Amino acid sequence: MLPSKVELIEVGPREGFQFEGIGEPDKISTADKIRLIDALSETGLKDIQTTSFVHPKQVPQMADAEEVIAGITQKPGVAYSAIYLNDVGLKRALATGKVHITGKITLTASETFSKRNQKRDSQQDYEMQRKVAALFKENGFEVSTASIMAAFGCNYEGPVAVSRIMHLAEQLHQIAEEAGSKLKVLSFADTMGWANPEQVRRMVTAVRERWPDLRLRMHLHDTRGLGIANVYAALLEGVDSFDTAVAGLGGCPFAGHKAAAGNVCTEEVVFLCREIGIETGVDLDKLVEVSRFAQKIVGHPVPSKVINAGVQPAGLQTAAQ
Amino acid sequence: MLPSKVELIEVGPREGFQFEGIGEPDKISTADKIRLIDALSETGLKDIQTTSFVHPKQVPQMADAEEVIAGITQKPGVAYSAIYLNDVGLKRALATGKVHITGKITLTASETFSKRNQKRDSQQDYEMQRKVAALFKENGFEVSTASIMAAFGCNYEGPVAVSRIMHLAEQLHQIAEEAGSKLKVLSFADTMGWANPEQVRRMVTAVRERWPDLRLRMHLHDTRGLGIANVYAALLEGVDSFDTAVAGLGGCPFAGHKAAAGNVCTEEVVFLCREIGIETGVDLDKLVEVSRFAQKIVGHPVPSKVINAGVQPAGLQTAAQ
Repeated sequence: MLPSKVELIEVGPREGFQFEGIGEPDKISTADKIRLIDALSETGLKDIQTTSFVHPKQVPQMADAEEVIAGITQKPGVAYSAIYLNDVGLKRALATGKVHITGKITLTASETFSKRNQKRDSQQDYEMQRKVAALFKENGFEVSTASIMAAFGCNYEGPVAVSRIMHLAEQLHQIAEEAGSKLKVLSFADTMGWANPEQVRRMVTAVRERWPDLRLRMHLHDTRGLGIANVYAALLEGVDSFDTAVAGLGGCPFAGHKAAAGNVCTEEVVFLCREIGIETGVDLDKLVEVSRFAQKIVGHPVPSKVINAGVQPAGLQTAAQ
Repeated sequence: MLPSKVELIEVGPREGFQFEGIGEPDKISTADKIRLIDALSETGLKDIQTTSFVHPKQVPQMADAEEVIAGITQKPGVAYSAIYLNDVGLKRALATGKVHITGKITLTASETFSKRNQKRDSQQDYEMQRKVAALFKENGFEVSTASIMAAFGCNYEGPVAVSRIMHLAEQLHQIAEEAGSKLKVLSFADTMGWANPEQVRRMVTAVRERWPDLRLRMHLHDTRGLGIANVYAALLEGVDSFDTAVAGLGGCPFAGHKAAAGNVCTEEVVFLCREIGIETGVDLDKLVEVSRFAQKIVGHPVPSKVINAGVQPAGLQTAAQ
């Protein structure tokens, strides 16, 4: 059931620098953000989430979203996307004329988390997604991608039932249809690091049974050390699309950001895939260099183990049988 | 295929403090070693590897092996084992009268590594294991356990073929038989962190096919971030015995010990098992406290993510369906 190749969406510049900047909005300079994205462009990664168009008062560390987009060198064949949680953010992204618009709508499995993070209850969140979907349509974009946040569990509400996910996935399909689109991708975000490998497999199996043509994606965090086991579990179910963050950015327990759970580390996922014979299109050696650069930018040890241990010595890498 | 319960052998005090002490033999005091072992005894762990009877000139940080054994409070029902790489070490362990003797013999899949680590080539290593087995017999101990070091790959020789493992397992069975014993447990040590989940599954499948009654054990390192995925892979194949180290001791990349690859972290394995419904007999909350104490002793951040993120809030832990 393992896929022969996977696509990786690099979210380090967005999610990583968002968490790094909590309480220190100017910690990472715009120039460094641009340098990191440009370096990632040279590794073979084809999708890079660059920044977040959120309210600068709420997330001041992302206030330079327009500057970041304007400053990077877009490599042909690479999609430079961004995040927008509402219609205002989407309008800002559209206004740059340089953001790859993914036509993505998002619902959250935990209403408590939704109220805290997006300041909307489930009904308001649903209405907001309809509004965003309509805006995509108005601007000629397909609503092709949907995401469920806190899909596995929530620090306020506990674990998430498969039935809840099925309900949300149904709603997301309805919103897309209303906008004249058909969902192609459904992403599961383990926002607070609750997933375990068996749960990942159960959820994938249930959703795939109902929507066999939907491409499934995982956005996993390594909050409690199970990140890479969850990736492997998803691969075993044939999942072939993952959000990952270079160096494991997106929160570092060693920096005292206890609430900030790091994403699964891009180079570790690339390494896992290489070792078990799955193509990623990414040059692991180049990526390890970029990861070391990311570590330098943030100024503290990052979660990545690969960059400290190094990958296996050249010439010894061929898998024996 | 998941087992309903697993046994964990805690190797933190031995492997952790061995690596911590490289170049700093007095870094961890004997008193702290004893305190950590005594604290581990209260967590529900039933097997604790306490120290290593190796030559004090070669591994000076383990020179206090006898003192450690003499100083700990042995809790009834807990086995306090130790390491001995040759007959001299075994005699020292026997002389204490307080070490739980496991009757373990060990071969190494990489001859280059064997020469560097044990100063013996494959033939010399084989002969040494015969000698050790005879000594076990002489002292009334069964040769019940065997181990293969560098079972998945070696930084000098590359990946290890399944055929090589089958050959070594055959030799280990012969040595045990010669000593009038029958092997009950075969352990695979990923000494240099080369294992990947698919390789773990292939190796387990091959060995189990040949020796269906043998209990298989994994001693996995998290050198390149795949440790917990390898644990999950082994669980999927029904493996129910693991060596683990509290806090992920056994080398910490953040301490600059690049060569020292941490063991998979006990509390993360316990956490994984709890989340997917496998019994370990370990009190996770108590273990997390002990892990924080281990972190204090070593004086630098440890690899464990569970102790930084914390386990899920009480009352929210029941797995939803």
